[in-house]
Amino acid sequence: MRAFYYNPMTTQELVKQIHTKKSFLCIGLDVDLEKVPAHLLQEEDPIFAFNKAIIDATHHLAVAYKPNTAFYEAYGLEGWESLEKTIKYLNENYPEIYTIADAKRGDIGNTSTRYAKTFFSHLNFDSITVAPYMGEDSVVPFLEFENKQTILLALTSNRGAFDFQTQKVEGEEVYKKVIQTSQTWKNHHNLMYVVGATKAEYFKEIRNIAPKNFLLVPGVGAQGGSLKEVCKYGLNEDVGLLINSSRGIIYASAEANFAEAAALKAQELQTEMKEILDKI
Amino acid sequence: MRAFYYNPMTTQELVKQIHTKKSFLCIGLDVDLEKVPAHLLQEEDPIFAFNKAIIDATHHLAVAYKPNTAFYEAYGLEGWESLEKTIKYLNENYPEIYTIADAKRGDIGNTSTRYAKTFFSHLNFDSITVAPYMGEDSVVPFLEFENKQTILLALTSNRGAFDFQTQKVEGEEVYKKVIQTSQTWKNHHNLMYVVGATKAEYFKEIRNIAPKNFLLVPGVGAQGGSLKEVCKYGLNEDVGLLINSSRGIIYASAEANFAEAAALKAQELQTEMKEILDKI
Repeated sequence: MRAFYYNPMTTQELVKQIHTKKSFLCIGLDVDLEKVPAHLLQEEDPIFAFNKAIIDATHHLAVAYKPNTAFYEAYGLEGWESLEKTIKYLNENYPEIYTIADAKRGDIGNTSTRYAKTFFSHLNFDSITVAPYMGEDSVVPFLEFENKQTILLALTSNRGAFDFQTQKVEGEEVYKKVIQTSQTWKNHHNLMYVVGATKAEYFKEIRNIAPKNFLLVPGVGAQGGSLKEVCKYGLNEDVGLLINSSRGIIYASAEANFAEAAALKAQELQTEMKEILDKI
Repeated sequence: MRAFYYNPMTTQELVKQIHTKKSFLCIGLDVDLEKVPAHLLQEEDPIFAFNKAIIDATHHLAVAYKPNTAFYEAYGLEGWESLEKTIKYLNENYPEIYTIADAKRGDIGNTSTRYAKTFFSHLNFDSITVAPYMGEDSVVPFLEFENKQTILLALTSNRGAFDFQTQKVEGEEVYKKVIQTSQTWKNHHNLMYVVGATKAEYFKEIRNIAPKNFLLVPGVGAQGGSLKEVCKYGLNEDVGLLINSSRGIIYASAEANFAEAAALKAQELQTEMKEILDKI
């Protein structure tokens, strides 16, 4: 298999990018061939063609891109090839961009090491999302990679978050227990957390437990979360937030102008972000 | 991408196979190229060559095979191709074998649907392991596939299982809460659960909550679990157990005789299983 080697991107560099671009926007590259403009389907690799156009049109407005691996796996080998091309394109053309593999992996120790190597070493993503259910030895293999971040699912933005994550363990919600416990693990400075925007007041308590870690925030916009509310409670001295938007940006138009339409949507969010950053 | 269509395998057929073969053994196909016999590395696809030899030598002793996707993803596109070849080989040559994609996936609703289609429709696995942390709407898309099973992580066999899974929620451990809650979900008859063999007495209480579901049991042997103890508490009227062994079988020898050595190890377990089945 091919392996790509680039300089890793540290969180300090991410913070610098946020201040340079006045943006903490992450764009989710969740490509569904039923939703991309019809003319792209004639391309040799429509998924990559779509991503390339979106990235080229929005890279100055976003600091991070997050392909969700489910969308690529769904297209089999061709899908994995599109994912490889996308991360390579980002690393070669926009090395200042922070990259997130939204893979939600996690397995017993040795097996997690394999996932970590796949996404960090072979594909050269800066970070990966990981599920916490199997505990410390399923997450620590990811944390061992220096200058790579492990984004642990804490409080997700879907309805099912209330099935287990908000249940109380010894008087404390499971998601808080996950954040607290993980802060005691080796190399915990490499942790970030997924925290959905749907309940902004939760960010206050999360910041008490994890004042320094970056939070990756889905659910602003489409799922009803408010950017201002999230920032009110979630910002820290490093900004510390990556706000993700996927469908709201990449499917803004299904016409020939899809990339420009995506840029306009990204611009709207970036403008809001600039206003917030200018005030702190 | 290619799609394969075969008759789905129902759990009734699985039960029938167990009685026919006097075995409830599942063999984990976790292929590590550093551990396979050196002569296989000259093959065009060493991973598939290894799997094919193991399957041909053990198919009469096992009722199920379980490739862990981490091991295939680690080899990039070639690894995914080996996985496709392996499941196709099983479905074409041993349609009586039950197949498990050990993928530990799980995401928000629409995204889980994509994972379900990938593993159930395109790759045509009979079942997939799924992580419960994101709750109902992350699991139900898998359960919608009739005659396909969703194997929810409940109590895993690793040390980290004690970080969150055995914590108490309203007086009850998280893993029991996961089993109980999931029994109320739509199409819950399509559920199985992962329950590690490391604490056999746990099976008693689990059988109170989930008397009918199959349990996929890792951790017998290498990780210290006892087959007899697990069966004492875990068997139900349909047998209801799939005991997994991976490394203990497939890496029994790294020499030219690796497949025969694997068959001998599988035979040892099958003999123990036959004794147990003959008594009930």
